[in-house]
Amino acid sequence: MKKIILKKSISAPRFLNEPIEYNKSFSRGLSVYLGKIGLLFISGTASINNKGISLYAGDFASQTRRTFENISALLKSEGANWHDIVQTRCYLRDMRDYKVFNGIRNAFYKKQNLKPFPASVCIQANLCRAELLVEIEAIAIVKK
Amino acid sequence: MKKIILKKSISAPRFLNEPIEYNKSFSRGLSVYLGKIGLLFISGTASINNKGISLYAGDFASQTRRTFENISALLKSEGANWHDIVQTRCYLRDMRDYKVFNGIRNAFYKKQNLKPFPASVCIQANLCRAELLVEIEAIAIVKK
Amino acid sequence: MKKIILKKSISAPRFLNEPIEYNKSFSRGLSVYLGKIGLLFISGTASINNKGISLYAGDFASQTRRTFENISALLKSEGANWHDIVQTRCYLRDMRDYKVFNGIRNAFYKKQNLKPFPASVCIQANLCRAELLVEIEAIAIVKK
Repeated sequence: MKKIILKKSISAPRFLNEPIEYNKSFSRGLSVYLGKIGLLFISGTASINNKGISLYAGDFASQTRRTFENISALLKSEGANWHDIVQTRCYLRDMRDYKVFNGIRNAFYKKQNLKPFPASVCIQANLCRAELLVEIEAIAIVKK
Repeated sequence: MKKIILKKSISAPRFLNEPIEYNKSFSRGLSVYLGKIGLLFISGTASINNKGISLYAGDFASQTRRTFENISALLKSEGANWHDIVQTRCYLRDMRDYKVFNGIRNAFYKKQNLKPFPASVCIQANLCRAELLVEIEAIAIVKK
Repeated sequence: MKKIILKKSISAPRFLNEPIEYNKSFSRGLSVYLGKIGLLFISGTASINNKGISLYAGDFASQTRRTFENISALLKSEGANWHDIVQTRCYLRDMRDYKVFNGIRNAFYKKQNLKPFPASVCIQANLCRAELLVEIEAIAIVKK
């Protein structure tokens, strides 16, 4: 029988390592192909590197940029980019950073001429490590 | 080649303005049509008006009703309604408002004879503006 | 006309009761079938029983196990299992429990030989009842 659901993990090991390497059972992202349509579920992504080390402790702006880079790398590994993102969920450790967050996001999306913008939500939340100030998860939809 | 993914932003400018008007790069919602099936991603929606002004500071019940109205308007702009909602995510600034929230939601859904109810989650979270007491995001699935 | 979207609520009444029984208008989960493809939206699920009573107050590990069991029961009612889960969202009342959470999740997924792991996010959040220490929502994709 033809497989109509094809699932695989999304990874970008040059940018961020696999959570299982530090004993966490989730994938950086999961792609699910239903025929020609792919749903890409990007996990909560933060400012870490390819060793799983947190980068830019105390520097919200740099953490945000790194988070966007990490997500870009995950998308790229599936042949996708930010134009394919339909929704983001943004978590800030301190909502006082919201203005800076938006400045960086505005510039990042503008550079890519993103249109329409994704749907989004942003809430304040403590994240899995105290030094992480921002985390973003996303859903992208692509065609093969 | 035939376009198999059609994306556009969802807006209801008579009820709530576009985030980009106050320098936020997201859409009020994004519709993604895959053939005849439409996935509607409704962004985190709160009690604001068509100028982007927060309404009903300090009045949780009125904020909740306005939030439902705003989402209804966004759905309507796509020819959809609450019967098409498959999932909501509800954020309350203070979980002590959960009982009031449920009373309003019960009445709102009952009036529409909603059945089955959407899947849902509700957590406490600080939102992007201090005066906002409730925010809801949603996913709807429709056929053209 | 042939119905191309078939929606129904997901329930597992032997494990957890319906929210409407305690006056909450949401379903434990909602399944949406688009032809042969089913999207299962599992609501925020916590450590409660078939009477809606919270179980294991103060015992994070037992709450986590019960939460996984409740979700398993909801999936099973649709002929699905954890291999069909594509994304989880995990809410911990206290992020200091994250290590214990991961230990239990690792063991749970390993026992089922889960591969690839779902996409996931985990944030700290106060939940709808003060005694609930963990809540998980999930999306599964299945074929009929």
